[in-house]
Amino acid sequence: MSFLFLFISLFSFAQIQKVEPAFWWHGMKNPELQILVYGKDISKYHVELSDNIKIKNLTKTENPNYIFITINTDEVKNSSFKINFKNGKKTADSYTYELKKRNPGSADRNSFSSKDVMYLIMPDRFANGDPSNDSQPNLTEKANRNLPSGRHGGDLRGVINHLDYLQNLGVTSLWLTPVNEDNEKKTSYHGYAQTDLYKIDGRYGTNEEYLELSRNLQKRGMMLIQDYVTNHWGISHWMIQDLPTKDWIHQFKDGEGKYGFKRSNYRISSQFDTNVSEIDKEEALNGWFDTTMPDLNQSNPLLLKYLTQNAIWWIEYAELGGLRVDTYPYNDKIAMAKWAKAITDEYPNFNIVGEAWMSSPAHISYWQKDSKIAAIENYNSNLPSVMDFSLYTDLPDALKEEKSWDKGMTKIYDSFSNDFLYPNINNILVFFENHDTERFNEIFKGDVRYYKMAMTLIATIRGIPQLYYGSEIGMLGDKNKGGDANIRRDFPGGWKGDAQNAFNPETQTSEQKQFYDYTQKLLNWRKGKEVIHTGKTKHYIPKEKVYVYFRYNDNAGKSRDLSSKNGDSNNDKVMVIINNNENEQTFDLKRFAESLEGISKGKDVISGKEIPISIENKLTISGKSSLILELE
Amino acid sequence: MSFLFLFISLFSFAQIQKVEPAFWWHGMKNPELQILVYGKDISKYHVELSDNIKIKNLTKTENPNYIFITINTDEVKNSSFKINFKNGKKTADSYTYELKKRNPGSADRNSFSSKDVMYLIMPDRFANGDPSNDSQPNLTEKANRNLPSGRHGGDLRGVINHLDYLQNLGVTSLWLTPVNEDNEKKTSYHGYAQTDLYKIDGRYGTNEEYLELSRNLQKRGMMLIQDYVTNHWGISHWMIQDLPTKDWIHQFKDGEGKYGFKRSNYRISSQFDTNVSEIDKEEALNGWFDTTMPDLNQSNPLLLKYLTQNAIWWIEYAELGGLRVDTYPYNDKIAMAKWAKAITDEYPNFNIVGEAWMSSPAHISYWQKDSKIAAIENYNSNLPSVMDFSLYTDLPDALKEEKSWDKGMTKIYDSFSNDFLYPNINNILVFFENHDTERFNEIFKGDVRYYKMAMTLIATIRGIPQLYYGSEIGMLGDKNKGGDANIRRDFPGGWKGDAQNAFNPETQTSEQKQFYDYTQKLLNWRKGKEVIHTGKTKHYIPKEKVYVYFRYNDNAGKSRDLSSKNGDSNNDKVMVIINNNENEQTFDLKRFAESLEGISKGKDVISGKEIPISIENKLTISGKSSLILELE
Repeated sequence: MSFLFLFISLFSFAQIQKVEPAFWWHGMKNPELQILVYGKDISKYHVELSDNIKIKNLTKTENPNYIFITINTDEVKNSSFKINFKNGKKTADSYTYELKKRNPGSADRNSFSSKDVMYLIMPDRFANGDPSNDSQPNLTEKANRNLPSGRHGGDLRGVINHLDYLQNLGVTSLWLTPVNEDNEKKTSYHGYAQTDLYKIDGRYGTNEEYLELSRNLQKRGMMLIQDYVTNHWGISHWMIQDLPTKDWIHQFKDGEGKYGFKRSNYRISSQFDTNVSEIDKEEALNGWFDTTMPDLNQSNPLLLKYLTQNAIWWIEYAELGGLRVDTYPYNDKIAMAKWAKAITDEYPNFNIVGEAWMSSPAHISYWQKDSKIAAIENYNSNLPSVMDFSLYTDLPDALKEEKSWDKGMTKIYDSFSNDFLYPNINNILVFFENHDTERFNEIFKGDVRYYKMAMTLIATIRGIPQLYYGSEIGMLGDKNKGGDANIRRDFPGGWKGDAQNAFNPETQTSEQKQFYDYTQKLLNWRKGKEVIHTGKTKHYIPKEKVYVYFRYNDNAGKSRDLSSKNGDSNNDKVMVIINNNENEQTFDLKRFAESLEGISKGKDVISGKEIPISIENKLTISGKSSLILELE
Repeated sequence: MSFLFLFISLFSFAQIQKVEPAFWWHGMKNPELQILVYGKDISKYHVELSDNIKIKNLTKTENPNYIFITINTDEVKNSSFKINFKNGKKTADSYTYELKKRNPGSADRNSFSSKDVMYLIMPDRFANGDPSNDSQPNLTEKANRNLPSGRHGGDLRGVINHLDYLQNLGVTSLWLTPVNEDNEKKTSYHGYAQTDLYKIDGRYGTNEEYLELSRNLQKRGMMLIQDYVTNHWGISHWMIQDLPTKDWIHQFKDGEGKYGFKRSNYRISSQFDTNVSEIDKEEALNGWFDTTMPDLNQSNPLLLKYLTQNAIWWIEYAELGGLRVDTYPYNDKIAMAKWAKAITDEYPNFNIVGEAWMSSPAHISYWQKDSKIAAIENYNSNLPSVMDFSLYTDLPDALKEEKSWDKGMTKIYDSFSNDFLYPNINNILVFFENHDTERFNEIFKGDVRYYKMAMTLIATIRGIPQLYYGSEIGMLGDKNKGGDANIRRDFPGGWKGDAQNAFNPETQTSEQKQFYDYTQKLLNWRKGKEVIHTGKTKHYIPKEKVYVYFRYNDNAGKSRDLSSKNGDSNNDKVMVIINNNENEQTFDLKRFAESLEGISKGKDVISGKEIPISIENKLTISGKSSLILELE
């Protein structure tokens, strides 16, 4: 009797609840595929594949609801096969697993580089293109634009609707903060507490719309960059609610002997500190980023494979042009090196930029692929790109401070003096704000002169410039006063009925226009400038708060790049002058003789005016301004 | 008639005025010796060596008053040979060149290491042991103790007279600021504008007294470290007054077309900055440190050889235990790498510490031998030791600041988190002041509690602690108010008739005694502590302004070092606690479990008291104090 009961109860739960990834592709370089199947007591069934496909590995965990099936996809000759779950001879449940055809050239896809300008969008705060998806029955948090930290209704359709605006602005790649489902009860708009790694949050749209956005971008010569979070998932994630293994996440024993949350101490210097104590290191790396974000254990091979495949799945599915990885140094660094390698093995030209929020270039550069500093500890992250948080930190101070031995504009000079530490200095993100920082325009009280100087710098120095939505119209936001929500305000004009529309240059305020016009001019000019993308840099010690540098090619003045599409791109020397004085400055050009040899004039890329340039002459530049001269 | 006149005038100046080095030694590893001979038109004579010794190379320069003779000393079989200057068959002048016998074991001499404590003395300001040498007829600046920047009369005899004091204090090596002749008109007391590289300044004593000091130190198990200046000589140096070659020093064209002085811009980041402009780099490295200090061109092979041999000459002659090199990164770095290699090839155990005054550990470590960071630029300095200017910079701030994310005691923690960047972390000088910095005790207004915390730190952390004379009696000095002279005041008791004598613990003021007693106790304890000299470090993130670290050996708790002379040295785990709160702090020891395994008690090395230590217990430490516990 009891035996019969068990038999029945087993069968009544025999349905497959989840298969991840739900499908895959033929012809990947790495033919190995790990398929997670989730269902009540699923591991108690016998698994068989159709078409005589062999199971390379079958992993069960302490949780009977999971089974991990590893196959060699090269053995799959058809477009699909069946995974059968059997109880004796009877098939209890079955899943038809599809292997799709890859897009031509998928493996060799292009990715973002220093040719590009990256634009960071918080999709909930950019534009509400589809008000019908603002709230969803199956998602807890409903739209409420009155709550600063609530869901405001921005979505993928809103982004798609404004691609003309973005293209005209001159940006070439979009980094969206995470758009996967984040079904936390509160502040889910930021998306960093994901609850489904294979599904776009319904309030943003659908997987199909995500692909539509990507394809629309590609048509414009632009690309989509996904924000990837390997460090943590949302606490409401279905796998967190029913852990495959106890060590899937890091758990800490509390005073009452229960396991779970402990906040990270955020001291990520523990990643390289040879004096670090184990307890501090564990707390830094394994502590949780926040109460709703259980810290994933990337050293668990099943999880690492899951994260790797999930990233590849999105690249392949959504035709991505890059990844941005959240809180990079908080992860297990050995596992992450494998993760990055697996992805870049699959897509050799693919770019991934990691958020290593540290202030010293020695520490930041540690995380870039082939870092000689990381090699001290025999480490190689395999991460192609990092963010120049050093410049980000120094820039506002440099513009605020009076000059002194190591303050003021010298800070910028000093920052770039560390470039030799980076194994790939062109593949570094340069920015003056993002979704986690104070708004630059807030620091300078909306004074467009500071914005222009900063924009000049990031658009003309080595690396990949990154803008944060709204910078280009002078958006404000004070993190210290209003918290994160205050630096993530709605873009004016993104919502039906908005009092003002800044997306349309015609309806921009005169203030917004000052920001926008400068940005638009500069970024569009930058598009074809190879010398800015990959040229060398030569800079001069700032004098009287004036910083001067040149971007140049080794062949400057000799050969000309005639093959370029852009007629202007044969200018291979650019002089940049940033004057942080209130007053205009006039200075001798003789000091720059080594950079001005053979030069007779310079064209101001903003005004288009030509001015004579010679080492016998002086140059005058207005107060609090910059000048970008194409030299000839 | 005119021919005869020339003939006579030639002969009348045929005397040799200088031979440098004046003598050398048999049996050096590098048998090659470059002998400089100086005399009016000396290069016009024919040179012959006695005993059939071959001239390997004879170099004349554009200045006829110089000749450089290179020989292979292995060919010299006797204790001397003759250098004959001939005019036809007639010998115009002759010099008997002596090759002395080396001391046994000279090549394998011991040098300073992390076993040592270094004590920095400005000899003019320490003690006047021989008032008869205070002023010298042939030296311009006369003694005048009333002038803050004048010569005060301190000398080598003064140092020799106080070796008991220094030995009792617990220091084991003396770094004297330069004692070679500095015959500048003003502020010659600092000695960095040397005018004779082979002669002790007469106001300090004689070469023989210098050797006497060194030998007296060695008898006490101590050693002498010479301050070596490769970057510049004094403008009154005889060779600067009659340059061997125009490029012996760096000269800049002024507005009137004359060559000479230009001040360095001091931006030594140009040594590794891949974006640097040539003009800035040239000004940094070739600009003069000061008007009276012409910048030497170490890339001139004759000069480089001169500097190398001069350093070796002093090591061999004065039986030195080490070198400290001034303004290291201002030199030609390629030449300096050869210089350091030549010296350490000759003396394989020899230690040289370079002054690379930079604030970031990545930059400082660049200058240490085998730096992986320098290897990025394929550079290797060959310089064994560097100074921890990063800790020096951070320490006062750390003790002054309130705690915050990256301020207060965390600054010290962060500083040591960079240890992995150094190729040899034990061979790094740790200090909180020197002759160029604000007096630490001035910063903290003579509050001995801060001094004790700082002294605890440098005496127990990795590296070689370096004290500056007078620190140990709480000497004050404000560079901002009184300039350099104010941080280089006379040591009380060093001059006959001084109102007070701090050299004698009996006559120290009660305030001085607080500084002295602590230092004396701590440094003498440190002498035998191998675990402090070469042990590992494990530190814990500061909490509530309390910083805790452990020094330990891998075999801590397992084997005991029974071979050591010092009975106490078998303690192989030391716990250091620094509490920067005004109030006492009580904290749980559980957090340090990984360092306290198997430990039951700790002995306070200052009071000698034993306290029970267990991870189940709490520990209490007084406000603004430190505790060093030998654990058992």
